[in-house]
Amino acid sequence: MGVDIGLRVTSYAIVDVRGNVIAHNQFPTLDHPNINDYATFLSERLIEMMEANGGYDTIRSVGVGVHSGNFVKGSIENSSTLPWKGEVPLATMLRDRLGMAVAVGNNAHVRALGEHTFGKAHGMSDFIVLTLGPGMGSCIFSNGQPHLGNEGFAGEIGHVCINPTGRLCGCGQRGCLEAYCAEEGVVLTATKLLDKTDKPSKLRQYDILNEKHIIDCCKEGDTIAQETIYRTGVMLGIGLANYASVVNPEAIIFTGILSDAGQYLLDPAREAFEDNVFHNMRGKVKFLTSTFNDNRMQNVLGASVLAWQVQEYSLFK
Amino acid sequence: MGVDIGLRVTSYAIVDVRGNVIAHNQFPTLDHPNINDYATFLSERLIEMMEANGGYDTIRSVGVGVHSGNFVKGSIENSSTLPWKGEVPLATMLRDRLGMAVAVGNNAHVRALGEHTFGKAHGMSDFIVLTLGPGMGSCIFSNGQPHLGNEGFAGEIGHVCINPTGRLCGCGQRGCLEAYCAEEGVVLTATKLLDKTDKPSKLRQYDILNEKHIIDCCKEGDTIAQETIYRTGVMLGIGLANYASVVNPEAIIFTGILSDAGQYLLDPAREAFEDNVFHNMRGKVKFLTSTFNDNRMQNVLGASVLAWQVQEYSLFK
Amino acid sequence: MGVDIGLRVTSYAIVDVRGNVIAHNQFPTLDHPNINDYATFLSERLIEMMEANGGYDTIRSVGVGVHSGNFVKGSIENSSTLPWKGEVPLATMLRDRLGMAVAVGNNAHVRALGEHTFGKAHGMSDFIVLTLGPGMGSCIFSNGQPHLGNEGFAGEIGHVCINPTGRLCGCGQRGCLEAYCAEEGVVLTATKLLDKTDKPSKLRQYDILNEKHIIDCCKEGDTIAQETIYRTGVMLGIGLANYASVVNPEAIIFTGILSDAGQYLLDPAREAFEDNVFHNMRGKVKFLTSTFNDNRMQNVLGASVLAWQVQEYSLFK
Amino acid sequence: MGVDIGLRVTSYAIVDVRGNVIAHNQFPTLDHPNINDYATFLSERLIEMMEANGGYDTIRSVGVGVHSGNFVKGSIENSSTLPWKGEVPLATMLRDRLGMAVAVGNNAHVRALGEHTFGKAHGMSDFIVLTLGPGMGSCIFSNGQPHLGNEGFAGEIGHVCINPTGRLCGCGQRGCLEAYCAEEGVVLTATKLLDKTDKPSKLRQYDILNEKHIIDCCKEGDTIAQETIYRTGVMLGIGLANYASVVNPEAIIFTGILSDAGQYLLDPAREAFEDNVFHNMRGKVKFLTSTFNDNRMQNVLGASVLAWQVQEYSLFK
Repeated sequence: MGVDIGLRVTSYAIVDVRGNVIAHNQFPTLDHPNINDYATFLSERLIEMMEANGGYDTIRSVGVGVHSGNFVKGSIENSSTLPWKGEVPLATMLRDRLGMAVAVGNNAHVRALGEHTFGKAHGMSDFIVLTLGPGMGSCIFSNGQPHLGNEGFAGEIGHVCINPTGRLCGCGQRGCLEAYCAEEGVVLTATKLLDKTDKPSKLRQYDILNEKHIIDCCKEGDTIAQETIYRTGVMLGIGLANYASVVNPEAIIFTGILSDAGQYLLDPAREAFEDNVFHNMRGKVKFLTSTFNDNRMQNVLGASVLAWQVQEYSLFK
Repeated sequence: MGVDIGLRVTSYAIVDVRGNVIAHNQFPTLDHPNINDYATFLSERLIEMMEANGGYDTIRSVGVGVHSGNFVKGSIENSSTLPWKGEVPLATMLRDRLGMAVAVGNNAHVRALGEHTFGKAHGMSDFIVLTLGPGMGSCIFSNGQPHLGNEGFAGEIGHVCINPTGRLCGCGQRGCLEAYCAEEGVVLTATKLLDKTDKPSKLRQYDILNEKHIIDCCKEGDTIAQETIYRTGVMLGIGLANYASVVNPEAIIFTGILSDAGQYLLDPAREAFEDNVFHNMRGKVKFLTSTFNDNRMQNVLGASVLAWQVQEYSLFK
Repeated sequence: MGVDIGLRVTSYAIVDVRGNVIAHNQFPTLDHPNINDYATFLSERLIEMMEANGGYDTIRSVGVGVHSGNFVKGSIENSSTLPWKGEVPLATMLRDRLGMAVAVGNNAHVRALGEHTFGKAHGMSDFIVLTLGPGMGSCIFSNGQPHLGNEGFAGEIGHVCINPTGRLCGCGQRGCLEAYCAEEGVVLTATKLLDKTDKPSKLRQYDILNEKHIIDCCKEGDTIAQETIYRTGVMLGIGLANYASVVNPEAIIFTGILSDAGQYLLDPAREAFEDNVFHNMRGKVKFLTSTFNDNRMQNVLGASVLAWQVQEYSLFK
Repeated sequence: MGVDIGLRVTSYAIVDVRGNVIAHNQFPTLDHPNINDYATFLSERLIEMMEANGGYDTIRSVGVGVHSGNFVKGSIENSSTLPWKGEVPLATMLRDRLGMAVAVGNNAHVRALGEHTFGKAHGMSDFIVLTLGPGMGSCIFSNGQPHLGNEGFAGEIGHVCINPTGRLCGCGQRGCLEAYCAEEGVVLTATKLLDKTDKPSKLRQYDILNEKHIIDCCKEGDTIAQETIYRTGVMLGIGLANYASVVNPEAIIFTGILSDAGQYLLDPAREAFEDNVFHNMRGKVKFLTSTFNDNRMQNVLGASVLAWQVQEYSLFK
């Protein structure tokens, strides 16, 4: 089974080895601010679904994708967005309630597994999956395996600095990639552009602007929205060039809301990338967008792949 | 056997599985500006050494570390410093002359193998080896294996941009890490500091200043030399923070001439690193200097490790 | 794409990453006794199918499962049953005709990949897939990877000797497992039993008895057919006990025609296995039958998995 | 550090990454029939040695080779020869006493690691290390990694049956390889040969004959000793042929007391092997004897290699 613990919604599904979703459902994450209650509630929902779809015994294990999830430790570590603070040993909590092996990973890891098993990265050994949403995350695959890092924290591309005198990021540093390319940053870029000029723009109609508005207006030809996406793409290309010079991936696969901007984002990103990447790699790294168009189902699917990567329960006893 | 093709000197040695050097020798690389002549001369020297030390049949294979070496292709690719231009299929050239399997890798790869097998990285799965010399190179180990990248070019940390409006690099970009932390960059930093002031400095005695002068003067207490190393360390720390945020290594191991500066370099690097790295990694990444104190022998030793990673000759037939 | 070169029929299909068959077709293998003609004909059929289903550019590579296929060399090696003799460099022959990467493996390897990716072995690290058909083949997975052996010939379980004074095998030895458990051996066991007694048996109605007749009669309650399967199971159990003592698999997965006999075969095999296996493994090795019930489609599916394990064509150039 | 827990003697040593023994010592294993006492005594000796040789902080971890050791579980499991019965969680017991990571493996595993890192198997991916001593053990390397099996019990080659009506083995079965090729079996073969004839033989001088006597007399030309070794070699060759048909190793490396018989053993083993192995492997599998001539130090060295394969202590906390 795969579980995606999002900030608003927890989705869960039974997925077979071929990626077919047998059953799925969801509930609001924030209904359970106490992690013990949450773990109990989630476990009950999972067992309900198992029993209704072939039975408990037909399920091998459960994979969970969650913000700040750490596969090495099986925990949520200091999530800045979820209500549960500190280090939450979620894999153990669920394993004890379910009597079944549980794996926990972060969103970037889970998505990369989904792309490798069922998506654009199938058959690739060395690639990067980049998630562009409310935050940013990345996962490198090396020699066909995900690179998780020594502590399980690899992939914090959002806090790579691309301009030491640049925009202030929520993390306290200046010039983080996330300050330009995650949702808040993109909205800030648009707001600044709107403030600088009197030009009409569809973006002006929104009281609270979000990334989706900008992408939609961009596709509808709004020039300020297009300029926003263009500038975001340039920053992204510079950040990725640094990354790629060190990693030399076969492809970078873009996923998350912002990747819906498609060529409006990827063309300037590509151009800035080629200008900044180490010369031997120029023209050799593919830029691909994910085949999955439902981010939540992508996470659930990736989480179901993660489920297979934990040893069976009998080996924990 | 291990071979290190340096810009000035080619060193070669017979090394046993425990890293003991049975025999070693060297000759000037530039004596053979034609690559065919060079390959023939080198092969003759290698066979001579084999015959004098147990015989041709006791050697399994040959590993070669060289600037711009590409393990995936077995070639030297567009080296900017060696006399042989374009793509040189060195592994095949030597294999045909020697009748023995040959592996070719770049300096960063070869050094990382040496550190993993015989040095500070023994037993580590996820780490970075950083070479600081005339150029810069890095190699990530992921899950206990070197990450070579899709085309074999991974590790070009020297051309990671840390300041888009910064110093011009030889590659044509601005603000590359190499422009500050490779030999020429360090000398430039010292020269600029010397020009800005009348303060006496031992560095003023050298007509042509090099990195070694600066390191020596730094250790002897010269304040301008120390300021040079300090500034270099800060830039290095910023660059490594970006790298580590994405990779989450257990340790970064410093090798190459500049690492002789020891704590003069590592203390400011560490401080800038901690200021810039993603918060969950703060205080968790070890900074280590290599145990090897002879760079040339380190390369030869690492190249001998590489030799074992190629299949035996019989499988090429 | 996946291709299964059977003794009678060559099947081929376009399979997506989830194991869905997009298109499939077949032709008689023996229509092309000359291997060059065969390779050309097969390539034309494959390209036809690609063009009719999304186009040549949507296919990454081709995997081929074939008797005596050697993945390490990409060839068919000394097949005793196919018309093409000696070492046939099939991967190269097809690659040159298709302009696309091609992987070749033997049936046991291909089936094991299919079971690991889409079948009962999903999520297992250490298991054996055993094919019981006209011949016998086995493939060990170790640490999640297929064990192919140094020359690519691993898995010849059919020629494991279980009784040095036993039945003569086609290979010239006595007491090979294949002499009892492959199709001819099973038929011979039945014939001997029929000759020893006058008891009526449905098996007597067939002029030329084959394995399928025996399995069908066994299920219909024929005692001689049941005794045949029983004895076959005992021999199989003894052979597998030897194998498992050395390999310690999580499961043995049975596939091929004979596995259709189900519990008639597995019960005596299990009993003989437990009597003969090293005591610490008793009761710990699962005996499973494959979920695939069409051997030919299983091979094609497994071959499509193999296709992803070869590097893309660009890296051969 | 490496520890070898033998039936009579426990040896332990500090070994550096290159296999140099910095310090070593030993004590009688049976002095401590209670496992808690034993673990405490051993831990005290290890810490003493650490403190006398560079200090506790210079040691990363401890590897232990022991009969019936299970790396997956870190325990001794149902050893038939050691005084400690059932499942002994030795890794945890030592880790708690030492405050340091501890890995436990069986003799076959530990020796194979030693051969791979420091011996004849260096650079090989797929090979078998066979231990011939009081018992028999084997370890397959697959794709460069030891194959440990699902429960950690792989390698029980001694209980592979080569003749279902053969000699009774201590395990209760007939015809186990161990009944012919482990120490007791070899002595039994010699005794039977001595009983069948009046021919003079140096072997008759020993009241209690052991394997070493037979090997020594064999080398001195005693015909009955030679016949004993010859027959042992034949049985070994048959058993290995079965094994190799399934595994296809590059080499089989012989270690343990019996391997001292050298060509007296290997020549008939080779001949019987070639007669019985699957035809495509004939002449392709190397038979090698270990370079280590002190079995105890070989185990300690191998155990020190094992020490590096466990995660550092900090990750257990």
